[in-house]
Amino acid sequence: MADTATAQGFEPPALGEPYLLTPGPLTTAYSVKQAMLKDWGSWDGDFRAMTADMRRRLLALTGDRKSEYDCVPLQGSGSYCVEAMLGSFVPKDGKVLVLANGAYGLRAAQTMKYLGRAHTLIDKGDYLPPRGDEVGAALDADPAITHVLAIHCETSSGILNPVPEIAEVVKAKGRKLLVDSMSAFGAVPLDVNDIGYEAMVSSANKCIEGVPGFGFVIAKKSALEAAKGNSHSLSLDVHAQWAAMEKTGQWRFTPPTHVVAAFLEALKMHEAEGGVAGRGARYTRNRDVMVAGMRELGFETLLSDRWLSPIIVTFFCPAHEKFVFNRFYELMKDKGFIIYPGKLTVVDSFRVGCIGRMDEHVMRRVVEAAKQSLDEMGVDTAAPPATAIAERAKLAA
Amino acid sequence: MADTATAQGFEPPALGEPYLLTPGPLTTAYSVKQAMLKDWGSWDGDFRAMTADMRRRLLALTGDRKSEYDCVPLQGSGSYCVEAMLGSFVPKDGKVLVLANGAYGLRAAQTMKYLGRAHTLIDKGDYLPPRGDEVGAALDADPAITHVLAIHCETSSGILNPVPEIAEVVKAKGRKLLVDSMSAFGAVPLDVNDIGYEAMVSSANKCIEGVPGFGFVIAKKSALEAAKGNSHSLSLDVHAQWAAMEKTGQWRFTPPTHVVAAFLEALKMHEAEGGVAGRGARYTRNRDVMVAGMRELGFETLLSDRWLSPIIVTFFCPAHEKFVFNRFYELMKDKGFIIYPGKLTVVDSFRVGCIGRMDEHVMRRVVEAAKQSLDEMGVDTAAPPATAIAERAKLAA
Repeated sequence: MADTATAQGFEPPALGEPYLLTPGPLTTAYSVKQAMLKDWGSWDGDFRAMTADMRRRLLALTGDRKSEYDCVPLQGSGSYCVEAMLGSFVPKDGKVLVLANGAYGLRAAQTMKYLGRAHTLIDKGDYLPPRGDEVGAALDADPAITHVLAIHCETSSGILNPVPEIAEVVKAKGRKLLVDSMSAFGAVPLDVNDIGYEAMVSSANKCIEGVPGFGFVIAKKSALEAAKGNSHSLSLDVHAQWAAMEKTGQWRFTPPTHVVAAFLEALKMHEAEGGVAGRGARYTRNRDVMVAGMRELGFETLLSDRWLSPIIVTFFCPAHEKFVFNRFYELMKDKGFIIYPGKLTVVDSFRVGCIGRMDEHVMRRVVEAAKQSLDEMGVDTAAPPATAIAERAKLAA
Repeated sequence: MADTATAQGFEPPALGEPYLLTPGPLTTAYSVKQAMLKDWGSWDGDFRAMTADMRRRLLALTGDRKSEYDCVPLQGSGSYCVEAMLGSFVPKDGKVLVLANGAYGLRAAQTMKYLGRAHTLIDKGDYLPPRGDEVGAALDADPAITHVLAIHCETSSGILNPVPEIAEVVKAKGRKLLVDSMSAFGAVPLDVNDIGYEAMVSSANKCIEGVPGFGFVIAKKSALEAAKGNSHSLSLDVHAQWAAMEKTGQWRFTPPTHVVAAFLEALKMHEAEGGVAGRGARYTRNRDVMVAGMRELGFETLLSDRWLSPIIVTFFCPAHEKFVFNRFYELMKDKGFIIYPGKLTVVDSFRVGCIGRMDEHVMRRVVEAAKQSLDEMGVDTAAPPATAIAERAKLAA
């Protein structure tokens, strides 16, 4: 295998291609991509067996010991899966409390508008976390709310939202929890014994380290059964997808066969690395090494340590006239690292991902590349960064 | 290149894998799959350039000389694209006449039910073609109909529906035409100068010979502009996808980057083969060689020659007690060929596809494998097949 971890770290991407320091698509293992070098008949028994194996392996990551949950893969991007979850599990007369602190929470609220179903929003702005007490107050104030949607890791800022605390209050108030764990599932614990969500969604090209092309819903079987007739969309009807898959072992419509084959290889590598704990440990180390190095260069993180996810980290752009993000991006790319623009509305920022087929050795090279890029831009790293200290103070745990 | 055509035909699939004689996913060129051995950042300029190149190449296949049309790729399967087309181009107060003669037409009608928008159906049963005169009569009888949906090649039976004749009457009656050309686009002419559709959809894993993971809409720019606010779904909003892509060059949500890279390679190979004419000629030859050989073995086609598409052909299962489809399927698979079960509601049938990376040399081997499989099953090919002569008589042109 070309990408076995060694003392020197993983093998680099093939053909001199850059590392993707983004929230996905990611740098994936070469063996994951090699799994796509074959064509599969979607009706054939071999592929149906692959689908069944994939569903079993994903369920094994949930901690579900009572067989209460099932897994339903769905064609499309992660946002398709969020829409499918909202459209399928929230009845036409239901009402959703959307907890937003970034683009993905707001997109979920926008999705509810398309659906024409009742919803209300707690919007914490660019990065402040929704907390259990305010969720509880909102639920007390509005008995019509049937479901709460939480974003596990909001990659707009990189914050790891306090889902356990939210789950506790949602349960106490007798409502149902939906979780968008797109960029966290597989690396951050989301055990059904602790969280007890009604349904959650994630995607092939995040912490399991597959390639993009589909996502999956993990939901209580009781919820899947109750979802019949709810969906606004044939394609995004999770109940119909589940019922057909249970009956025939096939996807209702043509699946992305190659992407599924890649994902199955990625799941095997995930297991070999020690599952959620092993994967999470590597990403955490990636983050710690990268953040420490970037701070040494004078970069400041948006969030205090308590809220930093091991998925992606937002840095303020240095308050230096010679720092231009697009130039920094190109200099980093020249050195083999593709970083990500920021998504904050108030201050200039950029993001560096910690997920994908890379380890701390790679992260040290990222920091070195950042140092060189600053030098080439003539940015004095001793200058103070553009912080927003006053706002950050609100984040005190 | 491993798959260059030679006097002996294309190179076989790698690793002893079987040919996929199905309507997709298909057997694709090795170089198409090799294009997936790299990870792309979806935000990066390199990938944006690939998306732009793909859209240009697809538009070049439409015959659009006046720049009246644009191309919008969309994540998901072909059925997602049909739903997106119906939801985006049919206003909430519009009404669709769905022309059905098989599973895909009926699925479009089912989609309209999900949307809760007005529609009416001409259902011709398992395979009879909808004809221009009856479409005209239906439009005369119901002035509320704004759009007509036609299935170009209905792969349930393999019939090539008379879209030019339908387009003519739709235009004459002042209505708008939507075409599901999923399995035909790229191999059967659908020139906008002749057909003048409002919008049409197809998919990456059909006649362009890419791998599955997304589809695309080709629509009049005026229709794309008018589609704003129509869609029932955020994910399947063709207007929003188009507007975002025009503005940023990016897909709104994570694209299946590897599948897009494969498709771009497939488009280059399509062009090298002589575009729609060249691709169509090879498939037609595939069909002619395969059908002639199967008829010699005693198999009878569902359709008369006039209606046979160069995409996929339905055969009656022989009326012989020893012929069992599942056994025939396994015997054919053992010989390296995956065929497709039938989808007729009345008589037992199976289907053999003509599309994908294969040529007449392969089709001769398909026929030889069918002969051997019949022998192994002890089926006397001289026995009469299970025909439905009376029904077929209705197909007289």
